[in-house]
Amino acid sequence: MSHLTLADACTIIAAAGKKADEIGQPMNIAVVDAGGNLIAHVRQDGAWIGGIDISISKAWTSRAFDIQTKDLGDNSQPTQQFFGIHTTNGGKVAIFAGGVPLSRDGVIVGGLGVSGGSGEQDQSVALAGRAAL
Amino acid sequence: MSHLTLADACTIIAAAGKKADEIGQPMNIAVVDAGGNLIAHVRQDGAWIGGIDISISKAWTSRAFDIQTKDLGDNSQPTQQFFGIHTTNGGKVAIFAGGVPLSRDGVIVGGLGVSGGSGEQDQSVALAGRAAL
Amino acid sequence: MSHLTLADACTIIAAAGKKADEIGQPMNIAVVDAGGNLIAHVRQDGAWIGGIDISISKAWTSRAFDIQTKDLGDNSQPTQQFFGIHTTNGGKVAIFAGGVPLSRDGVIVGGLGVSGGSGEQDQSVALAGRAAL
Amino acid sequence: MSHLTLADACTIIAAAGKKADEIGQPMNIAVVDAGGNLIAHVRQDGAWIGGIDISISKAWTSRAFDIQTKDLGDNSQPTQQFFGIHTTNGGKVAIFAGGVPLSRDGVIVGGLGVSGGSGEQDQSVALAGRAAL
Repeated sequence: MSHLTLADACTIIAAAGKKADEIGQPMNIAVVDAGGNLIAHVRQDGAWIGGIDISISKAWTSRAFDIQTKDLGDNSQPTQQFFGIHTTNGGKVAIFAGGVPLSRDGVIVGGLGVSGGSGEQDQSVALAGRAAL
Repeated sequence: MSHLTLADACTIIAAAGKKADEIGQPMNIAVVDAGGNLIAHVRQDGAWIGGIDISISKAWTSRAFDIQTKDLGDNSQPTQQFFGIHTTNGGKVAIFAGGVPLSRDGVIVGGLGVSGGSGEQDQSVALAGRAAL
Repeated sequence: MSHLTLADACTIIAAAGKKADEIGQPMNIAVVDAGGNLIAHVRQDGAWIGGIDISISKAWTSRAFDIQTKDLGDNSQPTQQFFGIHTTNGGKVAIFAGGVPLSRDGVIVGGLGVSGGSGEQDQSVALAGRAAL
Repeated sequence: MSHLTLADACTIIAAAGKKADEIGQPMNIAVVDAGGNLIAHVRQDGAWIGGIDISISKAWTSRAFDIQTKDLGDNSQPTQQFFGIHTTNGGKVAIFAGGVPLSRDGVIVGGLGVSGGSGEQDQSVALAGRAAL
């Protein structure tokens, strides 16, 4: 069954949070469903308050365009084909690392977004979360 | 200690979710800290997607004005002293039942917002969540 | 000279703050100039964080329509001539007590907005602030 | 005690304002608390009205990401890891000089934002304000 449940989101968030703990960088972690709508968000103690919105935007973006946000970012630099996309959709499009689509049985069922550290840290936490699905 | 942690928020959300299960109405449940910033949000399976924003707004409102949203609502009807407050703060002010301040040792440390059913249902779930703190 | 200076704004805010202290209700206090642009804002310790935006909106509204916000409110109830005005101007129009125009030598030079208590409290603090100009 | 009071904010703003006077460039100066919520703002006589919002955004950004805005800016240029961050959080993220976190006893308790001149001027005024805490 391809539907993403709250239980799934909690599993993903727990795995992502565990990775964040391991690297010692508190994170915001958000999961959206196939419709791009938020299922769950957590802000670990000490994580940036500025990352609340960004984690949700990364999760939404990953599902909205079925792409990792870091890959969308490559295409969204000045002179690239999607430059300017970050101001569309009411500014909800995140174009830097930390957002990944969530798939089951080859079908994209949602998105996961992480914000709280460097791009590399956010990405590694997102991949750890995704691996738990 | 008056600071609200993610562990506190999870305890509150679990208690609220249990109540929602008992009454058979899936809910969005959100907790903000003393600064009004989101700590955690969950949308139970089948809960309204329109309630995501509302649960977060109710949580924020409860802390922003240190009042239950249903009580703010009483004061915000036409001809009452705060009529019009629902369009301030970028539309983030919720003026119907389901939002309650969270206190510890007599100090308000955050807010809890619930959205997914009738005002009475939302309120009962919020009170159940608050009681767990 | 009709121009409102930062020194004027500080005088007004100090007088308003003194009144708030007397009635024991911490307040947000904001002053805008003739152009409706913020000169100064203070949030007293313990005042509502939801009142930051509202105090600035009340100050702006008072100057934008050269009227006390409570009087604008009377005209903005359902069935009255300005009903709906609170959603214009990007939601920046406050239609409840606590905002007053600031005049010098019969010329309106700005607006003062107060938010933190009941409509009556906000209004009394605003009047105390205005009296200091 | 780590809480930032209005008295603290006034001390910081006074020191920043003194520096602005010395360099002869009127400034907007804003202080937010640990939750990113505005405590106080002043616009010195003759300072840009466009700097009201920017000073508040710089103060918020410094606290939201616990970083100086000029350092965030270095990471937010095209091809850098946070490019695009300036359109997140409703456009409230400032990525140029003039915003600094405020700390006490090693704990970040708020943010200070300055806008009114060149990046170098804004930054020097912000540092002067911060030094007064």
